[in-house]
Amino acid sequence: MLEAFFRPSSVAVIGASRDPEKLGYAVLANLKEGGFKGALYPINPKADEILGLKAYPSILDVPGPVDLAVIVIPYPFVPAVLEQCGQKGVPAVVVISAGFREAGREGLEREQELIEIAHRYNIRLVGPNCLGVIDTATPLNATFAAGMPPAGPMAFMSQSGALGTAVLDLALAGRIGFSRFVSLGNKADVDEIDLLEAWEDDPDSRVILIYVEGLKDGQRFMEVARRVTRKKPVVAVKSGVTRAGSRAVSSHTGSLAGSEAAYQAAFRQAGVIRAQSMERLFDYARAFAYQPLPAGDRVAIVTNAGGPGILATDALEHAGLRLARLKPETIEALMADLPSAASAANPVDVLGDALADRYEHALRLVLADPGVDAVIVIVTPQAMTQIEETAHIVGRTARETDKPILGCFMGEARINAGVEVLRQYGVPNYPFPERAAEALAAMVAYREERERPIYPPERYEVDRDAVRKVLDKARSEGRVSIGDAEARAILEAYGFPVPPSRLAATPEEAIEAAEEMGYPVVLKVASPDILHKTDVGGVKLNLRSAEDVRDAFDLIVYRATRYVPDARIWGCLVQKMVSGGREVLIGMSRDPQFGPLVAFGLGGIYVEALKDVVFRVAPFSRQEAEEMIREIRAYPLLEGVRGEPPADHEAMVDALCRISQLVTDFPEIVELDINPLMVFDEGRGAMALDMRLVLG
Amino acid sequence: MLEAFFRPSSVAVIGASRDPEKLGYAVLANLKEGGFKGALYPINPKADEILGLKAYPSILDVPGPVDLAVIVIPYPFVPAVLEQCGQKGVPAVVVISAGFREAGREGLEREQELIEIAHRYNIRLVGPNCLGVIDTATPLNATFAAGMPPAGPMAFMSQSGALGTAVLDLALAGRIGFSRFVSLGNKADVDEIDLLEAWEDDPDSRVILIYVEGLKDGQRFMEVARRVTRKKPVVAVKSGVTRAGSRAVSSHTGSLAGSEAAYQAAFRQAGVIRAQSMERLFDYARAFAYQPLPAGDRVAIVTNAGGPGILATDALEHAGLRLARLKPETIEALMADLPSAASAANPVDVLGDALADRYEHALRLVLADPGVDAVIVIVTPQAMTQIEETAHIVGRTARETDKPILGCFMGEARINAGVEVLRQYGVPNYPFPERAAEALAAMVAYREERERPIYPPERYEVDRDAVRKVLDKARSEGRVSIGDAEARAILEAYGFPVPPSRLAATPEEAIEAAEEMGYPVVLKVASPDILHKTDVGGVKLNLRSAEDVRDAFDLIVYRATRYVPDARIWGCLVQKMVSGGREVLIGMSRDPQFGPLVAFGLGGIYVEALKDVVFRVAPFSRQEAEEMIREIRAYPLLEGVRGEPPADHEAMVDALCRISQLVTDFPEIVELDINPLMVFDEGRGAMALDMRLVLG
Repeated sequence: MLEAFFRPSSVAVIGASRDPEKLGYAVLANLKEGGFKGALYPINPKADEILGLKAYPSILDVPGPVDLAVIVIPYPFVPAVLEQCGQKGVPAVVVISAGFREAGREGLEREQELIEIAHRYNIRLVGPNCLGVIDTATPLNATFAAGMPPAGPMAFMSQSGALGTAVLDLALAGRIGFSRFVSLGNKADVDEIDLLEAWEDDPDSRVILIYVEGLKDGQRFMEVARRVTRKKPVVAVKSGVTRAGSRAVSSHTGSLAGSEAAYQAAFRQAGVIRAQSMERLFDYARAFAYQPLPAGDRVAIVTNAGGPGILATDALEHAGLRLARLKPETIEALMADLPSAASAANPVDVLGDALADRYEHALRLVLADPGVDAVIVIVTPQAMTQIEETAHIVGRTARETDKPILGCFMGEARINAGVEVLRQYGVPNYPFPERAAEALAAMVAYREERERPIYPPERYEVDRDAVRKVLDKARSEGRVSIGDAEARAILEAYGFPVPPSRLAATPEEAIEAAEEMGYPVVLKVASPDILHKTDVGGVKLNLRSAEDVRDAFDLIVYRATRYVPDARIWGCLVQKMVSGGREVLIGMSRDPQFGPLVAFGLGGIYVEALKDVVFRVAPFSRQEAEEMIREIRAYPLLEGVRGEPPADHEAMVDALCRISQLVTDFPEIVELDINPLMVFDEGRGAMALDMRLVLG
Repeated sequence: MLEAFFRPSSVAVIGASRDPEKLGYAVLANLKEGGFKGALYPINPKADEILGLKAYPSILDVPGPVDLAVIVIPYPFVPAVLEQCGQKGVPAVVVISAGFREAGREGLEREQELIEIAHRYNIRLVGPNCLGVIDTATPLNATFAAGMPPAGPMAFMSQSGALGTAVLDLALAGRIGFSRFVSLGNKADVDEIDLLEAWEDDPDSRVILIYVEGLKDGQRFMEVARRVTRKKPVVAVKSGVTRAGSRAVSSHTGSLAGSEAAYQAAFRQAGVIRAQSMERLFDYARAFAYQPLPAGDRVAIVTNAGGPGILATDALEHAGLRLARLKPETIEALMADLPSAASAANPVDVLGDALADRYEHALRLVLADPGVDAVIVIVTPQAMTQIEETAHIVGRTARETDKPILGCFMGEARINAGVEVLRQYGVPNYPFPERAAEALAAMVAYREERERPIYPPERYEVDRDAVRKVLDKARSEGRVSIGDAEARAILEAYGFPVPPSRLAATPEEAIEAAEEMGYPVVLKVASPDILHKTDVGGVKLNLRSAEDVRDAFDLIVYRATRYVPDARIWGCLVQKMVSGGREVLIGMSRDPQFGPLVAFGLGGIYVEALKDVVFRVAPFSRQEAEEMIREIRAYPLLEGVRGEPPADHEAMVDALCRISQLVTDFPEIVELDINPLMVFDEGRGAMALDMRLVLG
């Protein structure tokens, strides 16, 4: 799939030029100088020959088949030329030309024309408005970037071509190497999902890197990413995360920016590692590309300097890793050979006068310790330090172990020679310990994520028809909101315990209902037109007598008609008063990219004032529901403080999974709140006290 | 002060050697090759001449005066040689030799011997166990590091010599330049405080950088730093911040690691900018060293690439800065000259084909906008990009404006030439937008901090004698803890409203007291031996009748004697029941470095389970107390949620300031808790309901 983009036998450059100032020249030159070994066809009606290659007036004039066409001509002519590609039977086309969706409405129409042509001829299309495509193994450089990056195990895709030029410039300096590089441009056809699938089994790509501003089909991205991340790490930078940034996205490529919470949840659920900056993206990528995954989170530090050892220790803890506790045998063996002033406990301080052999000794002992999962080697350039020799030692040792080793050779003028040696051995170096620790933490997180079994979402026996009926009724009456009085049927149909309740049209009916279920009770206004009942004084709690109920009924109805004069008032819902639990909120809203985004938090002030809430994209598994509950800051309150018993964990998990199923079964539900779900002490379940939902 | 270390006319190297493998050679060679212009005296009894300089058998044999001596001989001989320096009248000595406090008890004794000698002769001493001292203006390189760093406006002090070698190696590659560099080693004499004072008015040092593991005199550091940070920025990395890191500190230099909360509070109060890593330290330092401070937090971005523009926008918001809103005139002028596809709103996207002149145009317009306080210029190396020319434009423009400009030229192979040009103009470059944004944020924070008036701590009229009496009584009885019954007098003496309360020895007295103050009341066990009253069932709330009071009294006394059989029970404290407010906690503990550390948080679960608490070192001002209150995460609850009125802000500020005064006035109070302080609605004050304290 998409192999024609990366392994073509023949490439045509439509718009190839003899003018070195033109992009059409740069693309052809890159293909030629990049060492492409297949047939290369410059297409230019005004030239016979370009860069020593025979040129053709149009792609239709090329004698043999063409696997890949690169279009780099002014936008007005692109559709006609794409049509010719179709006629020629070209399976893969890169449109570098700009002037499409990013250029306003007319451009959008032009882009739709491209899509239509591509569909008609079964052409896969990268771009338009992009930098091109690179494969270093083929080798193929079908971009107008300045030169071919070194080969390496990273596959990179970027929604921003300009960012791509910066990344390639980093690569040209020898910092990083790529297997494949794609500038996606406007993503008229080929997008992140296609490339994930294309690179899933590519043996040259050990890690997939993504710079993305917005996704079109979030649910499908999750599905594919969830599968691919089981095979190789996928690291992504998602920009436009803040409100200000999102504005910049939509003025930039016009792509829809999903909400930050949705991306956060979706990436996590799909196993995609989110890097907080491009610098971290490559920090993580170098670790993944060149070092084995650690078996656990216990890290040893070998250093010739106490200060950096402390910085590294701080950084490990900050990154959520553990300082390995060395076995007594390891410590003894270290002490036997190290000078007496050295520290044999982790961090292992081999002292400032350590030569390469002392590093080797310490490194081997530490790696042999079964309590060590990974090692960071810190080298400061002190008077006697053998920088290059030490780098060779580290590199050779790294080749002989299956534990990851990251370098932290600190400095530049003298240190760089060592960093260069490390690179030859595939040991990534980080100039400061914090960055090494963060890269290791990404590896540990990925390893854990990959080994976690994937559970299917829970499926409960439910009564879908009952829900369908409530929704249809509301819709037939032209209503999009469903309040408490009707929502009860939905909750019951999906297996939620609800308190006894009855709709009462008159005070007398309300008293009768209350006496039947027993005091105390709650009265709530029942009206399809009033969704926020408390705002109109439509709720009365803790009513303890017939008199209380009568007073409350009259008051509620009076207030409701006064505040919302046109409201249809069905009467009041009488509900058994429930107390003695902890209140949580379960909500759902639909994200334009990812669909149903389910929220969980403690009720009341915790969600409203303290914004303590977590999200997952539905459907999700029990395990993911459990994670949600544990992730809120106020989780200790659910575990129980001051001797309280814990809240019923299973009941919360169950409620989240049932909501996940409900919102998956009924895509027309666009918003939903259970607030509160009253959760009782462990083993005593939970009860949904109030629900409202909105239909699309 | 300390000028002899930096501007000596004559330097003796005691232990100068002819063997290039020895540190004593390296130091002498560095002095010579570093261009020191004064008299240079190698001291070595076995040589007549070293590196072409006449050598002397001892410092006493040197003919002229010696301003600075550098000692680099084995530790057993250091004390005797220091004694000779004293006899010679040397005012400043650097002891490079190791084998002192860092080497166990014997070493500690040896170090104390050095201190004693230095005191006796009025010698100021840097080290021992250090890398040495550099002044690039003199020039003077009295270290054994590899070479002289470039001159620049940064003054750097480091508790870790090894980290110093890494930093110098960075400098040697041209990344940063130093005015002064001191490796502090064991800080037997000269420490961070001395250097802050010495560099306070040094015209060559625009920014002071500190790597510190632990401070000896935290209060004095704060006092000096608070003054110095008004004149120039002080940026610090404090390592050993985490629990694991702290262990590494004490095994490293044996310095006392203050608690993280105390350092966090103290640095903030003293205006010291805390960098989270060495990389950030230099990121901030380059901005401070070379660019003017921004007048505000409104940042404009000029970029030739949309993607990086979005990343920068995200980064600004993340760093707490604002994307500047350009004036319509600016946007109009931009549009007049930029191509139609360019974006004239901030971020200003000059497009991928922008040449240097387009950058110049945009940059000048943006800088002229009064709504812009700072500019980040992003350059990606696209096909037509004029990297060096653009860098010249940026540099020249930066020289003509008083607004800071930070570069973000992204890439390496082609981009580096531009970065080099920027450096010549003093425009710092950051390889990724996040780092530029963070550096700008540090500048904005410093600017705000520096302009904030320094208010003195509030001083209230209080009754110190009353407190003295309570403390003396406890002490005379051999008690170190003071509970609620006695603490009332302390609270009243320091102006805290307390609820009516009376000590009752019998149930009858308790009932009498309750009737007098009116029901409901609270009973608490009154015993000097029971500090945690609730743990022994020693508190009964909401007692509403004589019978309630009698029952509670008997129950409390019975339980207290059962749980703490030897406790002296004075009876019960009867207190008017107070409710209807929000409960906050004010606490204090003494930090070994910084002294009284006052804590503030919402009472109950917020402090205990959610760890939502902030700290300041006392004494502090009203303004600092106000900041504390606003900094807790649960602050919205104090502002009032769901239509509640806000809690009485002034009353909380007042309570914090009074506690600040109390713990300053009485250093023997080592721990204190007011829990809860009941804070009523705005304008209604607060009341201290319970207090306990511990004496040292």
